[in-house]
Amino acid sequence: MQLHNMLKFKMGWASATGPEVGTVLSSRIRLARNLSDYPFPNHAEPKELKELMEVSFEALRKSKHISRGAHLKLEDLDHTDRRFLMERHLISHQLMTENKSRGVTIGEKEILSVMINEEDHLRLQGISPGLSLKETWERVEALEDDLGKKLRYAFDPKLGYLTACPTNVGTGLRASCLVHLPALTLTGQINRVLEGLSRLSLVARGLYGEGTQVMGDFFQISNATSLGHKEQEFIDNLEKVVQTLIQREKETQKNLAEGPQRIKTEDMVYRSLGILTHARSISFEEAMQHFSYIRMGLSLGWEMPATLEDLNELQILAQPAHIQMVAQKELQPSERDLLRATLFRRRLKK
Amino acid sequence: MQLHNMLKFKMGWASATGPEVGTVLSSRIRLARNLSDYPFPNHAEPKELKELMEVSFEALRKSKHISRGAHLKLEDLDHTDRRFLMERHLISHQLMTENKSRGVTIGEKEILSVMINEEDHLRLQGISPGLSLKETWERVEALEDDLGKKLRYAFDPKLGYLTACPTNVGTGLRASCLVHLPALTLTGQINRVLEGLSRLSLVARGLYGEGTQVMGDFFQISNATSLGHKEQEFIDNLEKVVQTLIQREKETQKNLAEGPQRIKTEDMVYRSLGILTHARSISFEEAMQHFSYIRMGLSLGWEMPATLEDLNELQILAQPAHIQMVAQKELQPSERDLLRATLFRRRLKK
Repeated sequence: MQLHNMLKFKMGWASATGPEVGTVLSSRIRLARNLSDYPFPNHAEPKELKELMEVSFEALRKSKHISRGAHLKLEDLDHTDRRFLMERHLISHQLMTENKSRGVTIGEKEILSVMINEEDHLRLQGISPGLSLKETWERVEALEDDLGKKLRYAFDPKLGYLTACPTNVGTGLRASCLVHLPALTLTGQINRVLEGLSRLSLVARGLYGEGTQVMGDFFQISNATSLGHKEQEFIDNLEKVVQTLIQREKETQKNLAEGPQRIKTEDMVYRSLGILTHARSISFEEAMQHFSYIRMGLSLGWEMPATLEDLNELQILAQPAHIQMVAQKELQPSERDLLRATLFRRRLKK
Repeated sequence: MQLHNMLKFKMGWASATGPEVGTVLSSRIRLARNLSDYPFPNHAEPKELKELMEVSFEALRKSKHISRGAHLKLEDLDHTDRRFLMERHLISHQLMTENKSRGVTIGEKEILSVMINEEDHLRLQGISPGLSLKETWERVEALEDDLGKKLRYAFDPKLGYLTACPTNVGTGLRASCLVHLPALTLTGQINRVLEGLSRLSLVARGLYGEGTQVMGDFFQISNATSLGHKEQEFIDNLEKVVQTLIQREKETQKNLAEGPQRIKTEDMVYRSLGILTHARSISFEEAMQHFSYIRMGLSLGWEMPATLEDLNELQILAQPAHIQMVAQKELQPSERDLLRATLFRRRLKK
């Protein structure tokens, strides 16, 4: 457990500034790239993987876009450190277990980062707070351009960028927004919303991306394919749909806060606050649901003992590996639940 | 709705002083008496009931033991007033609906009271805080003696005092304690405890006596029959059993507050506090359950923003008719839930 210093640094995307930050926690752009001189990671020999990691780190060290970054070999880190990186959305769930000759470079404020030897050789990522896909895209594109001068990307004139999985071939782009939809969930409208996404070539995933659980009414919405359109078109499509979701969520919240529904909604929101400020033991999943309602209260302009930024920070710290980083030791699940509850009581005082 | 002035006066039994007041909310002695010159109420003509009420009120007005009392004809009161009296344990559930020529006399601090034309002509009642059966018995006995000089009780040398229901024949006595058993309930031991009571010639009832629901882990324990023993023997038997219950409840509370159980118990108690201090709408029954855990917290010496007396007062005010008395108007159930939650938030501030 060596990464606890990272707790001191705020993540750029948690700052709760930016357009539509009440509904869109963060916007993320990911580009998949592979180097033409090596087989894809799942076909590469250990020696090749190692060499690829060294070559990539070298290029990253020289790039002005991520120059002051941390360059971490995952095999040097223990399980809690790796989970900690996953909870910060810096590495994928897959890299938590598969860590030999895998690496990650993390730029300032964690706005830009690059995974090495995940499914593809390189996964460039940018995350920003709120609905800010365009500026995030520009940052990632600049990094990609710069790295392209130092490394040779596998590129086919007809197909575009080549990737390990066919769904990423072409642009190698995944644009996503982490959107908070408590009112659509409460009223059951969310099911039709999610069904509708596939017709728009989009998919919804859980809090930590592919194959993870939805918690706290947070949905990661992203493009389903990367081929056949320009990057900007995928981004525009996602942005347009997210704008519509924001609109529907806000209207539904307004309905829940009016007329006969008002008391029921207030009651739910403030009971959640009561539990978070009084519980002596609480799981991450339960806490996320209460935070969800408190966020909705804030979004409705109701009085709360915390700002959106406070909630972002608490939500991040409440995660299992983060809680252990706070304690600076490994903890049993029941010990984590205890420390988590203590943290909330301390931080949510009026 | 004319009794709201009674809200200003504290009930003697709610003062939270007296032996074992942490477990025993109140001790109650009831004596059933009938006048020899009249048929039992359910066989009496309307004229006879009316006459009996007048005769009884006259005797009660002259008794020094209850001289400064209020003498209320139930037919002069509306439904909310009658429910209000029921919630204060001054009239029975039955008298809420059957009110023609029914009356109640209420003495100072509501320690002594007499129902007229319930199942029996007279039901003399004494209530005191804590485990205080003997002094309560002495007070009721003094009143009974005094009234006996003014009215002729139906008495049979062989059977004792005659009553409408055979279970009350003999002494006409019911001694009861309202005991709070949250730990025995939580651990499931309560079922065996309740089963055991019948072998000791005792019964357990709900919050408002016969045929009412158990709420907030409060059980009314009383003698099952009134024949074959002296009053003092019934009282001693009840007191002995209640002492045992107190002992078992305290031991069980202590176990719940030690070792691995501690956090779970603390968590439950403080979540209840969180809900009572934050809810915007709450039913009486739900509130009673949360109060139950807060009482247990107090009994374990844990920090709470309220004393036992505060809780007694809030529990009384939280009842449906009391809440309407506070508002000084009839309220729909949902309006009551709202006002109840507001009351708790105001009163349970640190």
